[in-house]
Amino acid sequence: MLVTDLDSRLTELYEEMVSLRRHFHQHPELSFEERETPRTIAAYLRELGLDVREHVGGNGVVGRIHGGDGPTIAFRADFDALPIQDLKDVPYRSKVNGSMHACGHDAHTATLLVLAKALTEIDLPGDVVLIHQFAEELAPGGAKPMIEDGCLDGVDYIYGSHIWTPLPFGTVGVKTGPIMAAADRFELTVKGKGGHGAIPQHTVDAVMVGTNIVSQLQQVISRRIDPLEPAVLTVGTFVAGQAFNVIADEAKLSGTVRTFTPETQTRIITEMERTIAHICSASEAHYELDYIRGYPAVINHATETDHVRRSAARVVGTDGVIEMAPLMVGEDFAYYMQHVPGSFFFTGAGNPEVGAVFPHHHPRFDVDERAMLHTARILMQAAFETWNMHKKED
Amino acid sequence: MLVTDLDSRLTELYEEMVSLRRHFHQHPELSFEERETPRTIAAYLRELGLDVREHVGGNGVVGRIHGGDGPTIAFRADFDALPIQDLKDVPYRSKVNGSMHACGHDAHTATLLVLAKALTEIDLPGDVVLIHQFAEELAPGGAKPMIEDGCLDGVDYIYGSHIWTPLPFGTVGVKTGPIMAAADRFELTVKGKGGHGAIPQHTVDAVMVGTNIVSQLQQVISRRIDPLEPAVLTVGTFVAGQAFNVIADEAKLSGTVRTFTPETQTRIITEMERTIAHICSASEAHYELDYIRGYPAVINHATETDHVRRSAARVVGTDGVIEMAPLMVGEDFAYYMQHVPGSFFFTGAGNPEVGAVFPHHHPRFDVDERAMLHTARILMQAAFETWNMHKKED
Amino acid sequence: MLVTDLDSRLTELYEEMVSLRRHFHQHPELSFEERETPRTIAAYLRELGLDVREHVGGNGVVGRIHGGDGPTIAFRADFDALPIQDLKDVPYRSKVNGSMHACGHDAHTATLLVLAKALTEIDLPGDVVLIHQFAEELAPGGAKPMIEDGCLDGVDYIYGSHIWTPLPFGTVGVKTGPIMAAADRFELTVKGKGGHGAIPQHTVDAVMVGTNIVSQLQQVISRRIDPLEPAVLTVGTFVAGQAFNVIADEAKLSGTVRTFTPETQTRIITEMERTIAHICSASEAHYELDYIRGYPAVINHATETDHVRRSAARVVGTDGVIEMAPLMVGEDFAYYMQHVPGSFFFTGAGNPEVGAVFPHHHPRFDVDERAMLHTARILMQAAFETWNMHKKED
Amino acid sequence: MLVTDLDSRLTELYEEMVSLRRHFHQHPELSFEERETPRTIAAYLRELGLDVREHVGGNGVVGRIHGGDGPTIAFRADFDALPIQDLKDVPYRSKVNGSMHACGHDAHTATLLVLAKALTEIDLPGDVVLIHQFAEELAPGGAKPMIEDGCLDGVDYIYGSHIWTPLPFGTVGVKTGPIMAAADRFELTVKGKGGHGAIPQHTVDAVMVGTNIVSQLQQVISRRIDPLEPAVLTVGTFVAGQAFNVIADEAKLSGTVRTFTPETQTRIITEMERTIAHICSASEAHYELDYIRGYPAVINHATETDHVRRSAARVVGTDGVIEMAPLMVGEDFAYYMQHVPGSFFFTGAGNPEVGAVFPHHHPRFDVDERAMLHTARILMQAAFETWNMHKKED
Repeated sequence: MLVTDLDSRLTELYEEMVSLRRHFHQHPELSFEERETPRTIAAYLRELGLDVREHVGGNGVVGRIHGGDGPTIAFRADFDALPIQDLKDVPYRSKVNGSMHACGHDAHTATLLVLAKALTEIDLPGDVVLIHQFAEELAPGGAKPMIEDGCLDGVDYIYGSHIWTPLPFGTVGVKTGPIMAAADRFELTVKGKGGHGAIPQHTVDAVMVGTNIVSQLQQVISRRIDPLEPAVLTVGTFVAGQAFNVIADEAKLSGTVRTFTPETQTRIITEMERTIAHICSASEAHYELDYIRGYPAVINHATETDHVRRSAARVVGTDGVIEMAPLMVGEDFAYYMQHVPGSFFFTGAGNPEVGAVFPHHHPRFDVDERAMLHTARILMQAAFETWNMHKKED
Repeated sequence: MLVTDLDSRLTELYEEMVSLRRHFHQHPELSFEERETPRTIAAYLRELGLDVREHVGGNGVVGRIHGGDGPTIAFRADFDALPIQDLKDVPYRSKVNGSMHACGHDAHTATLLVLAKALTEIDLPGDVVLIHQFAEELAPGGAKPMIEDGCLDGVDYIYGSHIWTPLPFGTVGVKTGPIMAAADRFELTVKGKGGHGAIPQHTVDAVMVGTNIVSQLQQVISRRIDPLEPAVLTVGTFVAGQAFNVIADEAKLSGTVRTFTPETQTRIITEMERTIAHICSASEAHYELDYIRGYPAVINHATETDHVRRSAARVVGTDGVIEMAPLMVGEDFAYYMQHVPGSFFFTGAGNPEVGAVFPHHHPRFDVDERAMLHTARILMQAAFETWNMHKKED
Repeated sequence: MLVTDLDSRLTELYEEMVSLRRHFHQHPELSFEERETPRTIAAYLRELGLDVREHVGGNGVVGRIHGGDGPTIAFRADFDALPIQDLKDVPYRSKVNGSMHACGHDAHTATLLVLAKALTEIDLPGDVVLIHQFAEELAPGGAKPMIEDGCLDGVDYIYGSHIWTPLPFGTVGVKTGPIMAAADRFELTVKGKGGHGAIPQHTVDAVMVGTNIVSQLQQVISRRIDPLEPAVLTVGTFVAGQAFNVIADEAKLSGTVRTFTPETQTRIITEMERTIAHICSASEAHYELDYIRGYPAVINHATETDHVRRSAARVVGTDGVIEMAPLMVGEDFAYYMQHVPGSFFFTGAGNPEVGAVFPHHHPRFDVDERAMLHTARILMQAAFETWNMHKKED
Repeated sequence: MLVTDLDSRLTELYEEMVSLRRHFHQHPELSFEERETPRTIAAYLRELGLDVREHVGGNGVVGRIHGGDGPTIAFRADFDALPIQDLKDVPYRSKVNGSMHACGHDAHTATLLVLAKALTEIDLPGDVVLIHQFAEELAPGGAKPMIEDGCLDGVDYIYGSHIWTPLPFGTVGVKTGPIMAAADRFELTVKGKGGHGAIPQHTVDAVMVGTNIVSQLQQVISRRIDPLEPAVLTVGTFVAGQAFNVIADEAKLSGTVRTFTPETQTRIITEMERTIAHICSASEAHYELDYIRGYPAVINHATETDHVRRSAARVVGTDGVIEMAPLMVGEDFAYYMQHVPGSFFFTGAGNPEVGAVFPHHHPRFDVDERAMLHTARILMQAAFETWNMHKKED
């Protein structure tokens, strides 16, 4: 069977993709609480005759399609949902109160299952590993424990995609190098000394110290980091004080830091700690800082991204391939590419005609389902590009 | 009867003062919710044969002792309690859950009632007006409506005292000019524009704008006000943001401003409004500012304070008379002295031997009750000083 | 001779005062460079037959009039001029280019010389010491070395006055307690690390660190000092950077701190040092801080100020005696009152009719010369009040 | 003649390049003051038999080599020197006091002249235009007036290079898209109201307002600009105040803004103006802001940069071709590429063995002269790449 035949076969299987996606959409499961979804996935893959391993690193499922002695290529799809009430008026609306697939992981899963089915029907140049990942939405995420549990063992390359409504259906977003940010969280408690609002001299005003910190942390970004390195530091919450006429003894702040390289991330953490420590000391305040590193940046490898670029051009035409700016949001796909080369891309799924106009994590989020077929075709093509390159090299 | 006899008479009546004070202490009533206390006061004064007016300006009670054609002198005692749980272990502990006389207004009231009794027993050179005021603890207070309802009509001078545990029993705090601050409140809402914590360029960060405001408001105090004019501006609460990774769309701040002159108060309000308006505009934020003027500053008149000074020296000795620094807290006694000359003083009531060691508004607050006798004797003496001065002038 | 006779005698000698003052006005000498002025003073006092000591603590002159066994009372007049070009168009304009008596020390000197003459003509209850001080205008001043050189030896009380154009002629400014501030100076160098204006990450931006310091030093005043204690901290100069596109490696700041008590002064110094040290450390900058304490606050003693108050009332009437707010400027008269009780007052000398409308240190500064007579009469009266009080006490 | 022959020919002419470069090095001329340099260039090009136009847009020289009917390709070399004293100890040291070629424009010029000579010896597929530009170092630069005076008329593509000591000899720095920043300058005067350092309430403290501005301008970068868009705002100089005890009436600040897109540049200007205006108004200060846009960003075109990439690989090998990060400094080559496609690259010229270790604009700056040959060969190759592509397309 040729790649072009496989392409047609995927098109034939499109209705099954839709049906599977809608099934998952109606039965969303939250991160780390996935039960039925992995069971359904495992059953489907076993039905195809594959080797399947369940409970990988927790709730993950890994299947393997045996092929020739070419490189082993992994595809990854995540399958967790979000704690958001589904407000769409569609037949496949979520049946679970307060929970919905508002980010498209249902589509990722359906895409990968059907792609697996198509791939089992031919002789492949190498093995294909299907990584069905749990808990992408909630740090520390499912990728890390699945890798630790061996999901990448013997894998040579990995590809993944996110269905994406900000890009119109018919386009695909690609980028070499950094494509998604490292997204960290911090919690800061400033400990001052309360007192009467009219007698500041006996107090350490936690509101004041907190504001001094917020102000100078911005200077870390604008003065202490390479301007060519994108970086954001946001203090999202600031809560201090109990009464208008009482000087606050404590201020609680929380925020996020986004970066694309470990060097910038480390520099920011160092600068933050020094700044906070000294601003507190300047006013005789104390503090507790809890800095929680989130997923690292997603860094696409050059060769594999070129494979995706060419594959996408075949599926959506050259004009449909968009060189994206990196996104400041995070993705635990990053962990896979710390171990093996690969590429992560965004499959355009926005379409006003089908109501796919809402941003991800919105209670009315939906996608143009045909984007699933785009994803499947591009993943498949990218795999063959990879195998072909190796053949040439031989 | 001579003043010295009156002094002895007050001493005789001390036990009644204690008994009355403990009665009120066991039955505290919150500001604006006083029912039984004014009834008890009115009944006591009527029993003495005085003209009594109830419901003055709300829950106030005013009695009048008729005397000669000398000046009419008013004494004022407030009688409201605080929403604080009484944690003392004494027989006269508050019987009302969540409410107690944690500031000594019970003592003020008992003092004034017994002083009234003693004064009715002699011929006075002029009338004495007993102003029993409700709601001192809670702005807008009871003084203003009582004045509007005529409690100062025909009054020439006014004296008042606060029982005061920060001063040891046996001392009296006096001060000419400003003795207590104008205490204002403000509520500020900064309205920004929320958004993803990693995409600041499309937002107006309310945490950031709020911190810029807090920082520059301090400069109003240090750079825009006469350094010789005491003034404080405290931002007591700062609450903003819902999540660590979301830029806050709103920040709510509240605070207090303390001043001693209307000029300084007005200047601060003007500077605050200008500063807040422009800091918001600098970042395309909007705001709502609610500035609530509290009680004005208590400004003691020179001559009447000299009367108090001499009277106090007679009661506690020259060494017991302390020239106080002004207090940054407020008192609605200020309103009375905007209409008639007078003086407000602090009667020392701290005494570790009787457990009177806690600050005002503390759940274990108590006083050395003998301070009531000091207050009564000083008020009485100050009145006679006033009458005597007028006789000399004639 | 009675005090009233002495008063008349001073009036007779007024023309000589004017003549002497104009002589000094035409021959100003700068602080620490006084040569002819002390010689003239010493000659005048010797002519009166007094014990005279020259070169006291440097350029000072001290004369003593012997009287009875009552307390010894000192009067002080300073005699240095300022490096200001005299722009007045009067016959007695300064003959020295770039130097003038722009603060009235010429008048102080003439007043004291003529007062000495009058006092030698009668029997005094006690000795009078005439302290003619050099170098008041320039820290560290002449008062300190003159005291160290014995000018206060045997002195029991001291009085001094400043002729003062902001007060109209016919008034006298008095105040018990703090009347003039401690005026300190500081020099701060912030040491960062320069670099290209487009590459901040390899630099420590001294402009940025300097601005952070300026901002937070204001919070020392508004948040760390008793609001009832007047205090000012001004950064007067800020100089940093060599080119618009180069990040500055150094910022030089200078400023002044004004306080009225050693406690507040010390607290500010402590807070400044802590703030500067930590703001620098927060950004990896270094600093050098040179804090130079100037003259301490002038604190008038209560009893002696009452003497001045009553004396002034006799000279300018009760309405002419003004209770002043303290001035934020400094005076080394402060040092004398750290050793003996005394009082310093301001003699009104402003008068549009004689062109005495310019502030002190102005190139057109002049005084209503009749204020000299006021000063002489008040000093004399205050001395007799002092002696009289001691007689009564005996 | 083949391209490979041309390559050899350039190598033969290397000694002449060196000789020309050293001649220019000894006779530097400052921006806008170039006289002899353009004369020498014009004479050289005329000697080659070219059409030469002098005084193009000022001091520019443009030569044209006629070729076939393929696209016309321009090369640009700038030829101005810097006001820096040459401190090198070499035979070809600058003979002009206070002026030297400290940036390598002498090398650019020599390279282009010799390249022209080689190109005249063969038949070219299209015309070549030699743009010898004056005044690159000093805004507003020579590129703009030369373009306005027609130097790009009929030109289809343009290539240019900067000899670059931060890159070692044997490497070439290339980059598609933004490679050099827009570099703007601003001058800000903050107008407050001076006064005594102890009386802030009657002043508008220009140091304080200036520091508030510096602080909040950093927030423009960190909070108001897309974090993915590199941007720097540096306040390089801050000068305010005359005396430590006088509140400054004026602060003068200057700085630079670096950006890569007109959108970011415009956003920063808008935000700066709003911020400055409102921070001043918040304190009743006024201001004058002079924002001087410098050269726009240098944006390399994709296709032409690919030509350079391949050409460079041929000259220095694949490993010598370095994908550069963009530089935050400016170049008026930007203007040419606003009119025609092209690419600008950096030819490595650092070499400790020949003393080429100092940064550009350093008084001991020198280059490994062999980099000139690299530049000439790459420019030549890139031109043929361009012509060849057009042939294929036909």
